[in-house]
Amino acid sequence: MSIKITGVGSYIPGRVEKNSDFQKHEFLYEDGSTFSQPNAVIIEKFKAITGIAERRYAHNELNNSDIAYLAANSAIEDAGIDPEELDYLIVAHNYGDVLHNDLQSDTVPSLATRVKHKLRIKNPKCVAYDILFGCPGWVEAVIQAKAFIQSGMAKKCLVIGSETLSRVIDKHDRDSMIYSDGAGATVIEASEEEGGILAHESATYSFEEANFIFFGKSNNAKATDDRRYIKMHGRKIYEFALSHVPNAMKSCLEKSGKKIEDIKKILIHQANEKMDEAIVKRFYRLYGQQVPEGIMPMSIDKLGNSSVATVPTLLDLILKKKMDGQTLEKGDVIILASVGAGMNINAIVYQF
Amino acid sequence: MSIKITGVGSYIPGRVEKNSDFQKHEFLYEDGSTFSQPNAVIIEKFKAITGIAERRYAHNELNNSDIAYLAANSAIEDAGIDPEELDYLIVAHNYGDVLHNDLQSDTVPSLATRVKHKLRIKNPKCVAYDILFGCPGWVEAVIQAKAFIQSGMAKKCLVIGSETLSRVIDKHDRDSMIYSDGAGATVIEASEEEGGILAHESATYSFEEANFIFFGKSNNAKATDDRRYIKMHGRKIYEFALSHVPNAMKSCLEKSGKKIEDIKKILIHQANEKMDEAIVKRFYRLYGQQVPEGIMPMSIDKLGNSSVATVPTLLDLILKKKMDGQTLEKGDVIILASVGAGMNINAIVYQF
Repeated sequence: MSIKITGVGSYIPGRVEKNSDFQKHEFLYEDGSTFSQPNAVIIEKFKAITGIAERRYAHNELNNSDIAYLAANSAIEDAGIDPEELDYLIVAHNYGDVLHNDLQSDTVPSLATRVKHKLRIKNPKCVAYDILFGCPGWVEAVIQAKAFIQSGMAKKCLVIGSETLSRVIDKHDRDSMIYSDGAGATVIEASEEEGGILAHESATYSFEEANFIFFGKSNNAKATDDRRYIKMHGRKIYEFALSHVPNAMKSCLEKSGKKIEDIKKILIHQANEKMDEAIVKRFYRLYGQQVPEGIMPMSIDKLGNSSVATVPTLLDLILKKKMDGQTLEKGDVIILASVGAGMNINAIVYQF
Repeated sequence: MSIKITGVGSYIPGRVEKNSDFQKHEFLYEDGSTFSQPNAVIIEKFKAITGIAERRYAHNELNNSDIAYLAANSAIEDAGIDPEELDYLIVAHNYGDVLHNDLQSDTVPSLATRVKHKLRIKNPKCVAYDILFGCPGWVEAVIQAKAFIQSGMAKKCLVIGSETLSRVIDKHDRDSMIYSDGAGATVIEASEEEGGILAHESATYSFEEANFIFFGKSNNAKATDDRRYIKMHGRKIYEFALSHVPNAMKSCLEKSGKKIEDIKKILIHQANEKMDEAIVKRFYRLYGQQVPEGIMPMSIDKLGNSSVATVPTLLDLILKKKMDGQTLEKGDVIILASVGAGMNINAIVYQF
């Protein structure tokens, strides 16, 4: 028995927020002090490092669970399954449903319940739950689907990653330019075909790293409320990712029995283009090799960092031939990898 | 191989909130209208139905993840394991960390990361994640631990249920008297002994039931903010639970190969004493039997409904001989069952 991806889907929110839309923001340092450079310079530097030129925000009337549903619906159609056959419906997210212009996270009922409700699935044996695991949540939920299938508890699982980070950002923080909204979904099934999930790797580094990504006050010291926002220690995350992600990928590849030469693509969580390039470079260096041309497809320039949604969205775009020059064929081996709040790291070696 | 509970722990918060403490509350109907009865009568009726005389609230300086840690620490001590050997650390909750007198839910990093950090576990291979599954979250996380062990992905898992409902209640809502704070934890291990988890059952009813428990506005129509609170349609939940929970327990018992006569205790999620009694009565009626004396130990009179924490706390109290007349011996068979937001239902048949 193998465990295969039989359908993919994504929802790319309709509102385009360009770098130039941040031109009028008042960016401040953590201590509330102002930058010496003008915004044009800050934005140019940001673009050079992260690769982000624009990002997507969900329309005001759409919630996180709404875009999760749209991606899910697309993945179900793609798989051609009857949704009533699903044994699990898993939603990875981190902030729940946050209404536009509101500051409370709504997590009861779970987003998985909401998506199942919207999909009009009647079967109560389709167990719907949410997982919180930082940005690596979607990859981790795929690993959990693997556990359910391997242990005989499930045959078909719908795994969704969905986030509306635009609703938890501090506009006085330069990092607010990184975050975006998005949703990706995948149907995972027990299969008699060869390939599928060949190996996985998963880890939580919390001893010193627990608060590298956290919920914190606005950089605007004059803010009159106690509202908190997504915050990160970018430099620490960069160094952490570079020291640990390449090794996790290598360990996963070794478990899979495949060779470095077998890897056709690496789909990595897209938080920062330069960081991702450095991770992949270091990964190949572990094998004494140069990074092959086009190994790492990226959508970060147009989509930003949509947390749990980046990897399944990328997978959807490639499999549906919506990315120039990017294709995947039967037999191709890929690595899915992610790193984020926790700090969590995971990887999957997958063969189509 | 079996899957056994090798350690239990709980944290019972220090602040006792008695029914009489609600005497001065201004209770209102959903539409903002006032009750015709005085509070003394409302509280007396509440006590007669739910069985709740007092409940526990965490001290202001303690967060949900703090009390989760305290319960976890106790379970680890009880199991006598080295926490570095844990493969998974799972926290079931629903509202994250809510600071005293704050209205935002803090879920990044995950509560599991925070607990792992506080436990000073270094091993990155101990994967820490949160599950949101309504009140049945802890039982569901035990089922997930079972999947990880059965599939060979884990040998030792720490499963925690922790909630501070006192921080999301609307004081103008009569139902606010139901909710409490608490944390329970269990170490689950692969074992060569007989018994352990014999069967499980799990379901999500979301077609019509998704919003039986929800996040809604205060009953106080004069409230000037948009703050939302935990809300429920009590009557609908009562009817739902009575129609579905007994059958789920029966189906689980059948899968386990055990007979109704083998059941020594039923540890059911404690939301409402009368409802739980009716569920167990209907369960035995499915076998044409009367409810055996003392089959359902309850702590709801003193502890209220602490969501995900009720079942593991009850288990801890019994196994540590802190409940009068309640004991469990090697070989005893019990049912763990829960129902809550989702609407989710689950059950486990377990042999010590």
